[in-house]
Amino acid sequence: MTCPPVHPYLVEALEKRFTLHKLDSVPDKAQFLSSHRDSIRAVVGNAAAGADAELIDQLPKLEIVSSYSVGLDKIDLAKCKEKGIRVTNTPDVLTDDVADLALGLMLAVLRRLCESDRYVRSGLWKKGVGFNLFLLQFSGKTVGIIGLGRIGMAIAQRAEAFSCPISYFSRSQKPGINYKYHPSVVDLAANCDILVVACALTPETRHIINREVIDALGPKGVLINIGRGPHVDEAELVSALVEGRLGGAGLDVFQDEPNVPEELFKLENVVLLPHVGSGTVETRQAMADLVVGNLEAHFLNKPLLTPVV
Amino acid sequence: MTCPPVHPYLVEALEKRFTLHKLDSVPDKAQFLSSHRDSIRAVVGNAAAGADAELIDQLPKLEIVSSYSVGLDKIDLAKCKEKGIRVTNTPDVLTDDVADLALGLMLAVLRRLCESDRYVRSGLWKKGVGFNLFLLQFSGKTVGIIGLGRIGMAIAQRAEAFSCPISYFSRSQKPGINYKYHPSVVDLAANCDILVVACALTPETRHIINREVIDALGPKGVLINIGRGPHVDEAELVSALVEGRLGGAGLDVFQDEPNVPEELFKLENVVLLPHVGSGTVETRQAMADLVVGNLEAHFLNKPLLTPVV
Repeated sequence: MTCPPVHPYLVEALEKRFTLHKLDSVPDKAQFLSSHRDSIRAVVGNAAAGADAELIDQLPKLEIVSSYSVGLDKIDLAKCKEKGIRVTNTPDVLTDDVADLALGLMLAVLRRLCESDRYVRSGLWKKGVGFNLFLLQFSGKTVGIIGLGRIGMAIAQRAEAFSCPISYFSRSQKPGINYKYHPSVVDLAANCDILVVACALTPETRHIINREVIDALGPKGVLINIGRGPHVDEAELVSALVEGRLGGAGLDVFQDEPNVPEELFKLENVVLLPHVGSGTVETRQAMADLVVGNLEAHFLNKPLLTPVV
Repeated sequence: MTCPPVHPYLVEALEKRFTLHKLDSVPDKAQFLSSHRDSIRAVVGNAAAGADAELIDQLPKLEIVSSYSVGLDKIDLAKCKEKGIRVTNTPDVLTDDVADLALGLMLAVLRRLCESDRYVRSGLWKKGVGFNLFLLQFSGKTVGIIGLGRIGMAIAQRAEAFSCPISYFSRSQKPGINYKYHPSVVDLAANCDILVVACALTPETRHIINREVIDALGPKGVLINIGRGPHVDEAELVSALVEGRLGGAGLDVFQDEPNVPEELFKLENVVLLPHVGSGTVETRQAMADLVVGNLEAHFLNKPLLTPVV
């Protein structure tokens, strides 16, 4: 079995049960894979590394990819299906954390929490240096959600408690949902104050936030991305923020992590997080338990806990 | 009329209608008051400065104190009542903002939003320097609220959307409320994960957060103060945070603002804000409109909009 760098708790649980190879710490990956091609039966992935076509082709005995993430964008699902390789992820257990973070980012951007904290810590308040913050009310702002799956719904339910009208975009209108449906992302962006990316990353949703959407959101609008970096045309986002064509952004994910565009570091209308959407002690443990549980089930010929393929 | 430093929008609205003296910018306050004692009929106060017994005694023609705050702790209400001086505040309009900030602080402390943002901006993520954050889940944590008035209730309603069980302390149990009532603050602190101060500052609630309460909250507990600085025995709070006897704190108010204890500046388990609970563009304007509206009503012999005394 191979795995990328993951939580020590998961590494320990895997080592207890399996022969674990940490793929990121082998000096020559190609050579390593070729010499272990007949023994590796499972791959553990995460949000940053999964199993692409190349890796799958190098591992003829691969039976299962168990991902320590809900997103499956780093796994070649079609190829797995074709070869009969099972795929599992960690849904549900991280929904609350990611939705909480989305709300935290909305509040942090509108109420300038990080900027305010920096101001106090710098001693400027103490010194009586003026503080002309442009703080905006959160309650009552219209929240537009792209993707009304588990995470999108959890965000909507939380935002409703702040009297925020909810609207959404998804491929089709959801039956039995009272939130306002917009059949286009541009339309949604033009009609909300805060736009949240909460859909899966697929070829169709890559750069779903493009120049046109950013312009529709406008200089008073705020973008929240708790999905994946490539959902956003990052160059367009950065120039809109720098030029004041977009009001603000709360970003947990970036196009080429950990390479965050340095132009963002000096902006006060952004909050920048190192992809910690599901990164709580409680949830990382629940996710690790699911990764291990799926592997154990597979090798005991029992039904997988959270099968995708 | 006199006023402390307040929002430019309010200053402008007051100057348009009245002869305004900015008490904080006069060189000799005592001399100024004595030479204007027969003309000053109104005082505009805020959270930092109101009308104490000394000021009231210096202004024999004072008819009304209109405060740009909901808290009345800087106004000698008994003396106003005795002398027939009317008092107004700005309730309701700031409830949403203060409750939003309480939730923002909870999320920021548990999910370490400001620390994470500092980490990304410092370039450490980019450089691959490890990030061993102790991030905690917010959803499901028990929230204990001191004071279940307008603001306390608004906090409870928001926290419920995150599946947080709610408990509270107040002088007496509220009829028709399903949240768990604790007849003592220590009891409440011992039985919640996050303790929020949301009551008015009175002689009885001064230092309502003392050593015993902090110890009951303990090394996994988080204190949120969106009330007033003197609600908390600040020396005890600082030593508990520095020594790790308290898990974390989100503080919008301090005992001697803007003098924030410098020991807090280096702690990562605190979020420090410069008293911005009601500080949004939208709410400051609504508050200013109420201050002016109350003064206009008074001088036109109409009913006050938000009378206290």
